[in-house]
Amino acid sequence: MLRIEQDILGKNDRIAAHNRQWLAQRRILALNLVSSPGSGKTTLLVRTLQTLAGRMPVAVIEGDQQTEFDAERIRATGVPALQINTGKGCHLDADMVAQAFAQLPLADDSLLLIENVGNLVCPAAFDLGEAHKVVILSVTEGEDKPLKYPDMFAAADLMILNKIDLLPYLSFDVARAIDYAHRVRPGLPVVQLSATTGEGMEDWLAWLDAARQGGGGPEHLHGHGHATTGPRDA
Amino acid sequence: MLRIEQDILGKNDRIAAHNRQWLAQRRILALNLVSSPGSGKTTLLVRTLQTLAGRMPVAVIEGDQQTEFDAERIRATGVPALQINTGKGCHLDADMVAQAFAQLPLADDSLLLIENVGNLVCPAAFDLGEAHKVVILSVTEGEDKPLKYPDMFAAADLMILNKIDLLPYLSFDVARAIDYAHRVRPGLPVVQLSATTGEGMEDWLAWLDAARQGGGGPEHLHGHGHATTGPRDA
Repeated sequence: MLRIEQDILGKNDRIAAHNRQWLAQRRILALNLVSSPGSGKTTLLVRTLQTLAGRMPVAVIEGDQQTEFDAERIRATGVPALQINTGKGCHLDADMVAQAFAQLPLADDSLLLIENVGNLVCPAAFDLGEAHKVVILSVTEGEDKPLKYPDMFAAADLMILNKIDLLPYLSFDVARAIDYAHRVRPGLPVVQLSATTGEGMEDWLAWLDAARQGGGGPEHLHGHGHATTGPRDA
Repeated sequence: MLRIEQDILGKNDRIAAHNRQWLAQRRILALNLVSSPGSGKTTLLVRTLQTLAGRMPVAVIEGDQQTEFDAERIRATGVPALQINTGKGCHLDADMVAQAFAQLPLADDSLLLIENVGNLVCPAAFDLGEAHKVVILSVTEGEDKPLKYPDMFAAADLMILNKIDLLPYLSFDVARAIDYAHRVRPGLPVVQLSATTGEGMEDWLAWLDAARQGGGGPEHLHGHGHATTGPRDA
């Protein structure tokens, strides 16, 4: 089985490398958003698109086992979105994304947001050709997720801690969650926000701006106050 | 790839059938608990074990990509627990469970609770030999999950709607979530509870008692009031 797995990943990596080159030629920043089901990825996307409206061309790829729900929510903002249903599959792969390039209006100097299937395991192994993986962790999920699903957090260039509006009703320890994330990915920048209330969105948009200018690596947010340090309200 | 997938699933199904026979001979009720990461499975298990203490022998198998955290939490209740780390793997399989049989004290007429890897996709396809899959959905995850991950909800014999103590702070529509679950699994019994506050635990324990007596199918909870109908507080 190991050999088969290597063949599949090898083929995926070749297509991903092609995607990356295709995107770079057009100066399109592609982000691969990964998380558990229900972390609030689509709500975050909708609020992001509303804020970015008119500032830059954006397109969205939505991955789900079934339903068009998420693409419909995105299209309601006026942004073009393509839904990919993976059926039995547990992740998007580079070939699905390559095929989406032909079906979406993708302008030069634009932003492509890819919402992966809700799954903290499988999408970690499949490069799509994106510039960065962004992992979203909801504070309702518990602090231990970075250690329990280390491959995903190790592969990410940004962690978004979402649903911080619910912190008063939970025993979630923000500093511990960030410490755990840093054990598997030293220096990983962390943005704390609530996609529902909008609190903290400016930190995510600042990261996005820096990433469009070629940044967005692990060092980018260092020294920017609460975004990388302890609890937001500390 | 389809052929390879069928071979893997065929081999798994043969081992699962053997597990099921082995468990039946000993009158051990095995439940396979499946959900997203962070739905509260381990907290639910801990509270369940505390309530069942002394009433019946119980053992636990914990599946995670990494860490011994969950098994340690279970062992703190005095119940034997075996941790299986799946590494790159996204689900438990029947062979892992078969090997666990030899490593756990499993009494006749006992209960075996298997906490699968947090993942709403892959574990749906892998029979472990359990009597029932129990899917846990946290109300923080949104109502749409049964439609987005239909295989898992179609494979379950019980849906536990967890974290209902957080309902006042969310826009989650309980009736809609149950309606969506019933679209993919007509008649699926639903128990609403909070593993943190203990509210609703009695409904889950009643289902467990009925399942030990050979019930637990989709019709079992019908007519038991709020457990299968609309919002708990309606």
